Amino acid sequence: MTQEFSIPVRVYYEDTDAGMIVYHANYLKFCERARSDFIRALGVDQMELLRSTGRGFVVAKMKARFVKPARLNDELTVNCIPVKLRRVSFTFLQQVKKDGELIFEMRSEIAYVDLESGKLQALPAEMVEAVKPYLQEDL
Amino acid sequence: MTQEFSIPVRVYYEDTDAGMIVYHANYLKFCERARSDFIRALGVDQMELLRSTGRGFVVAKMKARFVKPARLNDELTVNCIPVKLRRVSFTFLQQVKKDGELIFEMRSEIAYVDLESGKLQALPAEMVEAVKPYLQEDL
Amino acid sequence: MTQEFSIPVRVYYEDTDAGMIVYHANYLKFCERARSDFIRALGVDQMELLRSTGRGFVVAKMKARFVKPARLNDELTVNCIPVKLRRVSFTFLQQVKKDGELIFEMRSEIAYVDLESGKLQALPAEMVEAVKPYLQEDL
Amino acid sequence: MTQEFSIPVRVYYEDTDAGMIVYHANYLKFCERARSDFIRALGVDQMELLRSTGRGFVVAKMKARFVKPARLNDELTVNCIPVKLRRVSFTFLQQVKKDGELIFEMRSEIAYVDLESGKLQALPAEMVEAVKPYLQEDL
Repeated sequence: MTQEFSIPVRVYYEDTDAGMIVYHANYLKFCERARSDFIRALGVDQMELLRSTGRGFVVAKMKARFVKPARLNDELTVNCIPVKLRRVSFTFLQQVKKDGELIFEMRSEIAYVDLESGKLQALPAEMVEAVKPYLQEDL
Repeated sequence: MTQEFSIPVRVYYEDTDAGMIVYHANYLKFCERARSDFIRALGVDQMELLRSTGRGFVVAKMKARFVKPARLNDELTVNCIPVKLRRVSFTFLQQVKKDGELIFEMRSEIAYVDLESGKLQALPAEMVEAVKPYLQEDL
Repeated sequence: MTQEFSIPVRVYYEDTDAGMIVYHANYLKFCERARSDFIRALGVDQMELLRSTGRGFVVAKMKARFVKPARLNDELTVNCIPVKLRRVSFTFLQQVKKDGELIFEMRSEIAYVDLESGKLQALPAEMVEAVKPYLQEDL
Repeated sequence: MTQEFSIPVRVYYEDTDAGMIVYHANYLKFCERARSDFIRALGVDQMELLRSTGRGFVVAKMKARFVKPARLNDELTVNCIPVKLRRVSFTFLQQVKKDGELIFEMRSEIAYVDLESGKLQALPAEMVEAVKPYLQEDL
């Protein structure tokens, strides 16, 4: 059976703007927190990777839809569903919800690169194995 | 002849992350600065709109491509090309360049809404007129 | 006996900069999260206050000391100790720690104001009562 | 005669919060931009320093006063006055003004360190020379 990973995110003043709603770019931060926690849950230490290999994950492409605004103090959940697995990249579907209702949705292609040269690198084999129970290729 | 609007953006420490490159979500901030300056150049005062009508612009959809990383101290240019004009929304193509080379590209649909209710509103007529000399519907 | 309030804070890419450490201004965000959670724990809804009275908390003064850098993935704790209680303001001492070791320390005076006029307002009486078990005036 | 360095800063949505004013921590970003531009104006390339020596500037201490709120679209000026020069650190006084009126004021001690070890380093001699015409030790 497929497992799903999600984290809670509280909306603080820092996340909002003068429209009294969450500033649009901050949903990308919320999604990146969920991806980082997901990668950590898979047993991968991004800081250690960065120091020992100079490699890390970068967003290559993204497509997003802003469905409803979130506001100060809202408690949101952010999931992280791998929907595609390639030799050098993941594609994730991520949804931000409030009380079960969709607020924001994003599909992003995350590439594994050498951060100095920008060159694509093969994903670590143990990471590929660890991600498989979460993969939902039909989404 | 079509006019093109762009602004310079300097990369500061606040824009970078531990990968020593610009944090991905910050390109959306750079693009929003260019859209805000563009709207101001059209003679529209967003703060005045917000106070007097409770209306403002929100990002409804976006699609982006991260081509090359930008780094600390880089001087970038960010343009803002309206490519579609509807009764309640604009679509903008925006490109972030460094020394003429493409770094980041984004297409976003910006809706005009009542910020309390979230309901779509017709764009102010004078704004629609002012944007026409910049419109490039073939992009 | 005095109670102490603290929250955990995880360091994500968004919090770091090209120096590969937490960007200095982000410690203020961490501290604001702890103050917001503390105020919520006291039973006060800041968003409700803002909407119904137009009043909110603003930082009036602050003094900070950066002791050691925090880095990507670090798990920090941030406390929030009220050390002074006035008619229109609180003073908080806040410490960011990693594995019990001090990383950052800040003393801030938080004023309660009408956000439109900026005028100081008396703190809600129930809030003053609720904060008393946490007060450590000797710090 | 003493020279003074300042930069203009425009307030965008990203800088504001749900209180409809500039989020307090963002004044630190504005001040860091002015310090970075000042250091660049002195002929020092921070990114080059970071890459070639692993050294950079970190905020060691700061003290700030929030005088009046700034709002969306405001055009501010931020200055950067070195008021103390030590072997391993600068102290800067920085003021954010709107139409000549003081909005925010900060005094910060900026140390030059090895970013890996955190150890204090002597400031580059050419930088010490370049900063002298701007020094106002009586402030």
